[in-house]
Amino acid sequence: MRTSQFPLQTIKEIPADAEIASHRLMLRAGLIRKLAAGLYTWLPLGLRVLRKVERIVREEMDRAGALEVAMPAIQPAELWQESGRWEKYGPELLRLRDRHQRDFCFGPTHEEIITDLARNELKSYKQLPINFYQIQTKFRDEIRPRFGVMRAREFLMKDAYSFHLDDESLAQTYQQMHTTYCRIFNRCGLDFRSVQADTGSIGGNASHEFHVLAASGEDAIAFSTASDYAANVELAEAMPLNTALSTPSELARLIDTPNARTIADLVEQFEQPITRTIKTLIVAASDAVDADLVALLVRGDHELNAVKAEKLPQVATPLRMATEAEIRTVIGAGPGSLGPKELPIPCIVDRTVAVTADFSAGANQDGKHWFGLNWGRDLPLPEVADLRNVIEGDPSPDGQGTLTIARGIEVGHIFQLGRKYSAALNATVLGEDGRATTLTMGCYGIGVSRVVAAAIEQHHDERGIIWPTPIAPFAVVLIPMKLSKSYRVREATEQLYANLQSAGIEVLLDDRDARPGVMFADMELIGIPHRIVIGDKGIDDGQVEYKGRTDAEMQLIPFTEIVDFIRDRLNTVV
Amino acid sequence: MRTSQFPLQTIKEIPADAEIASHRLMLRAGLIRKLAAGLYTWLPLGLRVLRKVERIVREEMDRAGALEVAMPAIQPAELWQESGRWEKYGPELLRLRDRHQRDFCFGPTHEEIITDLARNELKSYKQLPINFYQIQTKFRDEIRPRFGVMRAREFLMKDAYSFHLDDESLAQTYQQMHTTYCRIFNRCGLDFRSVQADTGSIGGNASHEFHVLAASGEDAIAFSTASDYAANVELAEAMPLNTALSTPSELARLIDTPNARTIADLVEQFEQPITRTIKTLIVAASDAVDADLVALLVRGDHELNAVKAEKLPQVATPLRMATEAEIRTVIGAGPGSLGPKELPIPCIVDRTVAVTADFSAGANQDGKHWFGLNWGRDLPLPEVADLRNVIEGDPSPDGQGTLTIARGIEVGHIFQLGRKYSAALNATVLGEDGRATTLTMGCYGIGVSRVVAAAIEQHHDERGIIWPTPIAPFAVVLIPMKLSKSYRVREATEQLYANLQSAGIEVLLDDRDARPGVMFADMELIGIPHRIVIGDKGIDDGQVEYKGRTDAEMQLIPFTEIVDFIRDRLNTVV
Repeated sequence: MRTSQFPLQTIKEIPADAEIASHRLMLRAGLIRKLAAGLYTWLPLGLRVLRKVERIVREEMDRAGALEVAMPAIQPAELWQESGRWEKYGPELLRLRDRHQRDFCFGPTHEEIITDLARNELKSYKQLPINFYQIQTKFRDEIRPRFGVMRAREFLMKDAYSFHLDDESLAQTYQQMHTTYCRIFNRCGLDFRSVQADTGSIGGNASHEFHVLAASGEDAIAFSTASDYAANVELAEAMPLNTALSTPSELARLIDTPNARTIADLVEQFEQPITRTIKTLIVAASDAVDADLVALLVRGDHELNAVKAEKLPQVATPLRMATEAEIRTVIGAGPGSLGPKELPIPCIVDRTVAVTADFSAGANQDGKHWFGLNWGRDLPLPEVADLRNVIEGDPSPDGQGTLTIARGIEVGHIFQLGRKYSAALNATVLGEDGRATTLTMGCYGIGVSRVVAAAIEQHHDERGIIWPTPIAPFAVVLIPMKLSKSYRVREATEQLYANLQSAGIEVLLDDRDARPGVMFADMELIGIPHRIVIGDKGIDDGQVEYKGRTDAEMQLIPFTEIVDFIRDRLNTVV
Repeated sequence: MRTSQFPLQTIKEIPADAEIASHRLMLRAGLIRKLAAGLYTWLPLGLRVLRKVERIVREEMDRAGALEVAMPAIQPAELWQESGRWEKYGPELLRLRDRHQRDFCFGPTHEEIITDLARNELKSYKQLPINFYQIQTKFRDEIRPRFGVMRAREFLMKDAYSFHLDDESLAQTYQQMHTTYCRIFNRCGLDFRSVQADTGSIGGNASHEFHVLAASGEDAIAFSTASDYAANVELAEAMPLNTALSTPSELARLIDTPNARTIADLVEQFEQPITRTIKTLIVAASDAVDADLVALLVRGDHELNAVKAEKLPQVATPLRMATEAEIRTVIGAGPGSLGPKELPIPCIVDRTVAVTADFSAGANQDGKHWFGLNWGRDLPLPEVADLRNVIEGDPSPDGQGTLTIARGIEVGHIFQLGRKYSAALNATVLGEDGRATTLTMGCYGIGVSRVVAAAIEQHHDERGIIWPTPIAPFAVVLIPMKLSKSYRVREATEQLYANLQSAGIEVLLDDRDARPGVMFADMELIGIPHRIVIGDKGIDDGQVEYKGRTDAEMQLIPFTEIVDFIRDRLNTVV
C-alpha cells in the first residue's frame, strides 16, 4: 500500500477530552474519529488493526471448534422478560420501540438469544457440547463514555456461549476457552494475566478475567511473585498479617483524644503504629440479623473490600455505609470514636484484626479511645472474616511468594454460567436416560475493539504507538528520500517495495515526497514496527537505513539483504 | 470440516410463512433461523456463504482503491436534522433515545455520517477523489418484512461514498464502481443485469440498479434483445407503437354502450381491437394547472407508469387516482365512460395514443362511447408524453432490437448523488484556485445478505439449493458408505479428505454414518456443488462415485484421479 492511495490522517493537536494515552494516540495517529459521545468511526488505518485482532480471535475460536453464527443486534423484549433481565438491567440497556410499538433492545450481550436458539435447535445430549460464537457490534449506554474506544458505547465484541449436559463438560470447555484466550492474547503480542474474578451479577460458578497490564488500567490485579496465582483485587483472598503483633504487652487504657477523629490523627498525635490501629466501619445490616447496623473492622492501613463485605449474610446488599445520624442514634458516638469494646451492634473483624495485639480503637464515646486493647483479655473476639483488599507484599493465598499489585485493562472474561438462562428459558435436551435435562452453559467474551486500545496503553512512548507486529497495520514502512528528484531512488524504492510484497510482507510505501522529519514522525506516531529509508547516498553504497521502532540507532543493511533481514525480524521479534 | 464438528441443522418442515423458494430453502437447509419479524440469526452454514460474498465484495472494493472504514450503527439526530432527512424519512427509520434523552437513529444508510467525516478530514482538492466503504449491519423498519433475509429489517450492507471536486471525477468513479459491481456479481456466479434506474427520493444525476434475474424478483426489468440497453420498467422509455394504426379509415360515431364499463367489455361486446381502445385515467392535478383533475390517456392494453406520471408538472405528487365522486362532479359521467372528446379538464396522451387512428373512447356521458375517433379530424391532439410501462416486444429506446421483460432482484444500486448532502452539511475543500468548493458525491450500495437469497432464487431445484461454486459453503462433500463398519472405507475416506484439503479444496466430510439417502438428500438440500461417494465396492475397483449437483447421473472416477478431477471442475465450472 502507498500513502498516496492509503492517505494517513494524522493530526498534531492533542484533543482536550482525551485523558489516556491510547485515546490521544488513536486520534492523533488517525485510527479513529469521534462521532458523538462514546461513538467512534474507525478510519482505514485503525480498521486494519481492528481486523487483525478480529482475525486472530476468529482463527483461535475456530481452532477450538467453536461455530461462528451471527445473531441480530436488535433483540425482542420478550426473551429478556423471560430471563428476567428486562427489568433488572439498568439504563445501560438501550431500549427502543419499532414502528408497531413493540419493545426491543440493542443487544449488550446475547445470552437470551443464544439460549432461545439452543432450546429450538438442540434436542439430544448427542449434540453436546456445542460452542457458538459471533463477532459483533454491541451497544451499552454507558453513563459516562470515556477513554475513546476503551469505554465506548458502541464496540466490537466476540461473544461465545457453550452448552453442556453436565458441569464436567462445562468445566472442560471452560478450560479450553481459557487456553484459547491465552493463545489469542499471546498472538496479539500482549503482556496479560488471567485472573480469578467475581462472578458478580451474571452469576455462575467460576470466572476468569483477562487483563492487559498497563499503568492506566482501571482494575487492580494481585499476583504472586512465586506462582501462577492472580486475582482481581476485588476477589483476592487476604491472609492474616500477624508477624510480631499478636502477643499482648500493654495494658488497656482509656485515653482522652479530643482532636483525633481519623486513623492518621491517632498515629500522629499518639505515636501509635498504624499497624496497631483499628478502623470501625458501620454499614447497613441485612434482614438476617436483628439489628439495623453492623460493624466491620479492618486494620488502620487496610481498606474494606465491598465485594467481600456483600458476601457476608449480616450485611445488606448493595453495601451501604451508615450515616452519622444513624450511628449516633444506635451507638451514641460519632464515626471518629467507634471501636469494638462494648459496641451495641453485631461486629465482624478482618482476619488481620483478629491477630493484632495491643491495638487502639474508639471507645464509643466522643473524644475517647482505648489503647493497648487485646482480644480475649479485654473484650471477646467477634466473628472473623476476610474483609479487606489485599495490598502489595501480602502473602499469596496459595502460600507461594508474596503479592504484587498491578493495574490491568480487562479485555476478556469467561464465565461458567450454569443454568441461570437455560432454566429461565427452559432450554432442555433429552439426556442419555431419555429424560429432559436442563442445559448448563458457559459464556466467553472478548472486547475486540478494546484490545486495540489496550495494546496501545501497553506499547507506546512519547513519539507514538509501538505496535506488536501481529496487529500492526503494516509490518514495514519504506521511506524514500527526495522521491521526485531522484530517478535512482524511485527505481530502487519500487524494486524493494515489490520484493517486500513478494515476500508476503505488509509494507507501506510513503510516497508523499514530504520532508524526512515529517515522514519519520508520522511513521513513529502510527507505530509501524520496522522502517527502511532509501536515499541517493545509500544507493551509492548499495545500502538502506534500517531502524526498528524501539531501536536507539539506525543501522545500514545491504540492499541485497534487507528483505531477508526484515523477514528474520518478523519471525523472531513480536 | 466434518459434520460431526460442523453439525447440519436441516429441517424437513416447510415453514408456513415462507413464500418464496430462497426463504424456504434457507430455513430448511439450516442457513438462518427467525428471531422475530424481519430479524434472522445466521447459522454456521449460512454464515459461511455470507462471509464468502462479503469477502468478494471487500476484495473488489479494495482492488478499486476504495478505503474501508467502520462507522457507528447508532447515529446522532443532529446530522440528520442538518441534511433534512430527520423529518423526511418515514417510519422505516428506527429512531431511539439514549439514557440522556438525546435523539439517535439506527442507521439505514450513512450519507450524513460520511459527509460529516469528509467535511472534517478533507481540506484540499489534492485529497480527491476518495472513496470510503464499509460492510455493516443496517436496520430499516420495514412495515411488512418478508421473504426471509430478502426483505429483512436487519441486514448486511456494503455502502460506499465517494467525494469529488467536480462532476467529471464523479462520473469516472461512478463508472469504476459500475465495473466493480459487474466483477463482484460475476465472481458470485450470478446472472445479473445492470439497469438504468430512477434516482427517486435520493436525488442526483445518474443511477444504475444491479438485478439478479429470477422469476420471483419484485422488480420488472426491460432489456434489449440486440443491445446492452436495460432499464427498470419504472424508467424504461416507451416508444410510440404506430404500426398500421395511424391512418383514419372510419367515421366517428357515438354508440350506446349501456353494458360496457371496461376496455374488456368494449373489446368483447363491440369487437373493437384492443389496440384501438383508449383508457382515460383521472388523477389529482398539481398546483401548476388551473384544475383539480387531469386526464392521462393510455392505450387499452397498456398500463400507466406512475413514476413517469409523477414527473409531469400537471400531476400532483404522489400520484393519486380521482374518486368516482370527484370525477362525476367535474365531468358528469362515471369512470367507465370517459374519453378525450369534449373533456372539461387538462388531458395528456401517451405517445402511442397520439399515433392511433380510428380509436374508441368514452363519450363523457354514462353509457355512451365514441368509435372511429381520429386526432385532428374529430378532436384536437392534446399534449403528448411518455406515460406507459413498456411491454414485451416494444422497440428498444436505443433503436436496436425489441424489449424483453424479466423479473429481477435488486442487489446493488449506484448513484451520482451530486451535492445534495455536501451542500446541506457544507462539506467543502479548497479547490485548485484556492477557493472553497462544495464536494460532489457518489454512493454505492450492495445488499450483501440479499445476494445470498438472490443466488438461491436463481439457483435451486426441487431438491434444494444449487450454489454457484464461489459462494458455496463447501466446494465438495465427501460421503463414505457404512463408515462405522468398514475399516477400508474409513481409511480411504480419511486419505481423500486429507488430499482434498492439501489441494486447497474446501471439503465437508459427512461422517454421520447415516443412511445414504439421508446424507444425499441433506447435501442436495444444502447445495454442495460436488459430491464424492466412497464405498467398499468402489475401493475394490479403485474408484469413487462422483456427481455434480446438477448432473443427471453419477460417474466413476479412479481414486488416484479424483483430486485433479475436482480441481479441474472448480477451475472451469462456476
